[in-house]
Amino acid sequence: MYNFRTDLALERRDIYQKINKIHQIDGIESTEEEKNENLRVTRVKITNENGEKSIGKPIGNYITIDIKKLKIAGEDEIQKTSETLSEELKNLIDKHTDKQGEILVVGLGNIYVTPDALGPKVINEIDVTRHIIKYLPQYIDEGTRPVSAISPGVLGTTGIETVEILKGIVDNIKPKLLIVIDALASRSIERISSSIQISDTGIVPGAGVGNTRQEISQRTLNIPVIAIGIPTVVELATLVSDGIDIFIDRLQDKAKSNDYLNKLQQEDKYEEVKEALNVGEYNMIVTPKEIDELIENMKNIVARGINFAV
Amino acid sequence: MYNFRTDLALERRDIYQKINKIHQIDGIESTEEEKNENLRVTRVKITNENGEKSIGKPIGNYITIDIKKLKIAGEDEIQKTSETLSEELKNLIDKHTDKQGEILVVGLGNIYVTPDALGPKVINEIDVTRHIIKYLPQYIDEGTRPVSAISPGVLGTTGIETVEILKGIVDNIKPKLLIVIDALASRSIERISSSIQISDTGIVPGAGVGNTRQEISQRTLNIPVIAIGIPTVVELATLVSDGIDIFIDRLQDKAKSNDYLNKLQQEDKYEEVKEALNVGEYNMIVTPKEIDELIENMKNIVARGINFAV
Amino acid sequence: MYNFRTDLALERRDIYQKINKIHQIDGIESTEEEKNENLRVTRVKITNENGEKSIGKPIGNYITIDIKKLKIAGEDEIQKTSETLSEELKNLIDKHTDKQGEILVVGLGNIYVTPDALGPKVINEIDVTRHIIKYLPQYIDEGTRPVSAISPGVLGTTGIETVEILKGIVDNIKPKLLIVIDALASRSIERISSSIQISDTGIVPGAGVGNTRQEISQRTLNIPVIAIGIPTVVELATLVSDGIDIFIDRLQDKAKSNDYLNKLQQEDKYEEVKEALNVGEYNMIVTPKEIDELIENMKNIVARGINFAV
Amino acid sequence: MYNFRTDLALERRDIYQKINKIHQIDGIESTEEEKNENLRVTRVKITNENGEKSIGKPIGNYITIDIKKLKIAGEDEIQKTSETLSEELKNLIDKHTDKQGEILVVGLGNIYVTPDALGPKVINEIDVTRHIIKYLPQYIDEGTRPVSAISPGVLGTTGIETVEILKGIVDNIKPKLLIVIDALASRSIERISSSIQISDTGIVPGAGVGNTRQEISQRTLNIPVIAIGIPTVVELATLVSDGIDIFIDRLQDKAKSNDYLNKLQQEDKYEEVKEALNVGEYNMIVTPKEIDELIENMKNIVARGINFAV
Repeated sequence: MYNFRTDLALERRDIYQKINKIHQIDGIESTEEEKNENLRVTRVKITNENGEKSIGKPIGNYITIDIKKLKIAGEDEIQKTSETLSEELKNLIDKHTDKQGEILVVGLGNIYVTPDALGPKVINEIDVTRHIIKYLPQYIDEGTRPVSAISPGVLGTTGIETVEILKGIVDNIKPKLLIVIDALASRSIERISSSIQISDTGIVPGAGVGNTRQEISQRTLNIPVIAIGIPTVVELATLVSDGIDIFIDRLQDKAKSNDYLNKLQQEDKYEEVKEALNVGEYNMIVTPKEIDELIENMKNIVARGINFAV
Repeated sequence: MYNFRTDLALERRDIYQKINKIHQIDGIESTEEEKNENLRVTRVKITNENGEKSIGKPIGNYITIDIKKLKIAGEDEIQKTSETLSEELKNLIDKHTDKQGEILVVGLGNIYVTPDALGPKVINEIDVTRHIIKYLPQYIDEGTRPVSAISPGVLGTTGIETVEILKGIVDNIKPKLLIVIDALASRSIERISSSIQISDTGIVPGAGVGNTRQEISQRTLNIPVIAIGIPTVVELATLVSDGIDIFIDRLQDKAKSNDYLNKLQQEDKYEEVKEALNVGEYNMIVTPKEIDELIENMKNIVARGINFAV
Repeated sequence: MYNFRTDLALERRDIYQKINKIHQIDGIESTEEEKNENLRVTRVKITNENGEKSIGKPIGNYITIDIKKLKIAGEDEIQKTSETLSEELKNLIDKHTDKQGEILVVGLGNIYVTPDALGPKVINEIDVTRHIIKYLPQYIDEGTRPVSAISPGVLGTTGIETVEILKGIVDNIKPKLLIVIDALASRSIERISSSIQISDTGIVPGAGVGNTRQEISQRTLNIPVIAIGIPTVVELATLVSDGIDIFIDRLQDKAKSNDYLNKLQQEDKYEEVKEALNVGEYNMIVTPKEIDELIENMKNIVARGINFAV
Repeated sequence: MYNFRTDLALERRDIYQKINKIHQIDGIESTEEEKNENLRVTRVKITNENGEKSIGKPIGNYITIDIKKLKIAGEDEIQKTSETLSEELKNLIDKHTDKQGEILVVGLGNIYVTPDALGPKVINEIDVTRHIIKYLPQYIDEGTRPVSAISPGVLGTTGIETVEILKGIVDNIKPKLLIVIDALASRSIERISSSIQISDTGIVPGAGVGNTRQEISQRTLNIPVIAIGIPTVVELATLVSDGIDIFIDRLQDKAKSNDYLNKLQQEDKYEEVKEALNVGEYNMIVTPKEIDELIENMKNIVARGINFAV
């Protein structure tokens, strides 16, 4: 399979279409909705195995909310985006559990690594109700859905696969549905901290950056898993590789055709670029200088969106 | 039972002896060791049910390391304290599991509340090995003990009892022993961030501040639980109550005996003081202004102590 | 002079009246306004030297905004409080400079010490305009007031008196008015992070906790200085001393009169209590456990209040 | 002048030599010293106007300490690097002031933006003595050098040019020498948080990322300015542009010569790449995912290095 180097189904669909020079993929349906000039919702549905194979994502729903100019967004735009997220999330939740079905919200990532801290930060803002229903039911409306929340840490810090931690907790407290929040890698810079992908097919932590962990999904946990993913980084080698592609395009135009260039463009230059950049021991990422602030904005959007929806 | 309002067995022993005007409690053995002028180790052993009942702590070992002048401690003092902690911890571990018995280190508390953040901060510094032994055994010495670490959050943020989270994880990954780190309440100001209690009887989160959670112990988890507790706060009403006792002592001396004062001194003024102080909706704590820095020092001591010991 | 151990003119007035058993102080005028059930504004005006001497604060205006239940305040209450602060602040600013008079906002305190971090945190949220007016005037409305902001640090970290730093900057950039934000000490617990004092007489950093620094005022800087102070701590010995007073009151009632008690109540027990509590090398403070969160709320209120007003 | 897009004199020298295919630049002298296998010191001295013009840096000394494998450096390596920094720094200080000449240490950057937070973080660790010498001379050895430290913030947050703030403070407290710490941009990824440049020619904040602020130097402040700069980012467009150069090199080899390619390689593709990457409103940076941790390591190295040297 092609190495898409993005976690977004939307971007994978676009790349697949571009590489294969087609406009429609069998097994993938898409619709788009402009909420306003700064807010667009794209719904990608993978309906069969061909769709699954084409873009390397399991059968299910993938909804992407794209926000323009988040950096300069005011309170109104943040509120509007929360509401859109809330609405889409509510639809997905209702497909998989009933109004009172217990939900466990899971924030993946490392609180000490800025672009990876979104999940744990959101968890701190979730309105949990499970313990109130259990210990102080008089203080809460009857029929309130039990909500709990956890931030399990990352393999490098815990030594335990996230799915092992969650398996233990899920078996013990028996929620009906999981909502998992994770920072993703995207292919395009403009989506960093400006897009939200909601899907009902679970998640493979670190999949976007070629650092695959065991998947968190209905298959491994036996309950439905809705994933909310926000791109916070683009991998450096991806970006340089894409930059070179753009350049070869221009060379092709201006310098006339050239067999070597033709061949070059069809290759995956990723590994070669990675080596040439001399990245060494580090995992280099590309991120806006303002990432700390963008993560704060996004934290508010996601936390409010979840709190409204559940 | 008397409300001791401290988590330290050492302080409870002293209070019990003072109230009952005795020097020795049946079922409690103690020894003291001065490591140097700034470092003292006190070992309190509860040996029978009478000891247990007297100070409200289960049968087992309670070792307290008291560090003087931690605030101005240099790298040498911090290192020396780590080594002392490490030694005591190692002895307790060896009593309960073998050299290669898998250990899970648990950091209790809330990373977003300064005096409660010690546990989560230590977890970030633990040298975990479990995943390396599992996935990259060639990079690690044969016979290395598997160590994992988790920071499960607090009930108010997760909606789940900590012991429920741990039960799930312990059942799933099956460690042989748990080390739990928690911020405690002490009775005396001078112990704040300057004492370390190590015990092999588990822990009741929030016990010191009258906010009892389900215990984390061999009884609930079926494996031995070693607790490392560090006082980071004194409850305000406790301190005012103690301050008034000191004052009544002086009154008794100077103002001659007085039936009302005599009676007063034997009462627990805690609830009355709490009401008089008009504390309202908050949980008021007493802490040094320098608590952020003291917690950093203590984090280094505990993390190193654990890393050496395991 | 009596050691009031509070920076709030309002509390000093109350203490002075209580000690001297009077209801009105010559040279001090007060009015109160209930904005709503959770929001009260008290305006204390010191009009002559007698007022000044009585409560140890210079001639000028002291406005205190008291917010009830800030901990559970929603976005609406926070907004309403900002608006009240903004209004009062605007009135004071208009008394001392014109619509376009340049303002420098100064956040006192130490970003690394939680209860002292309010000033620096607010500075990060101030909408500064001075550099835009200077370098990009086309992007800003004509007539916009130049606003700049600085967080100069604390003496223990910088080695320089704050007033020396500000003197240099004020002489060099020549603003027309200073707004100084500082964390204060109050006498009563319930005011912690729940009251805002605005005054036009400058500030003596650390005055409330007996750690006097050189004053920041028109006298030292040659421009008007408006101070916004928020209590974030009560000193421990103050609180214990007050607790004992309450106790002696009750003793007096119940145990009949007693010469020693009578005498005791008139004394300042502060130093004695301080010694008895064995506070040692630390500066012990009393603060709600939730101080990190309360400071965030207050930061939003103050930053918005200032941004609206200027 | 060529746009070097790096703040390091060492890298500029290398780029100039490569572009001009020369091995020696008139007016630039260099020596190299391997301290050990992981630690190299390069001393670049610009001696005349030709050197100055060639690489766009003023006449003076530029010392670069390169540390290999900082990420996995132990306490020993950190200590060794501190000592090297301290030694080089001491030599430069002694050239410009005497043993007791007062020094002001300035930490540039924004504490809230991770890769820009190094300066403010170091300031918090500097052992300041000025206030002790002034207020408590009995507690300090006679002849101790007065040291103060300040973190003035950034133009976007303060609205004031950093040099204006410093001018005011320098005029008022009259230190004999300034040490300025700043995060730099470098050209190569492997120098991120792994190199330290010490120079005695002052600094132009933001120069490396094309965001020039007024210079902080003897010319503007009338006292010598030693700058300690640490690369924490590489600008994205720089890196992509360099990546394309590497690619064109390979094309040249493999695809035979081509007039268009020849011409292309001599052009500065930076602006074109910037546009092609669709960076939009953000300032995209490339940084290791582990930057938070690397900055902590570097903070310790620089703070210790300065504390030893002064």
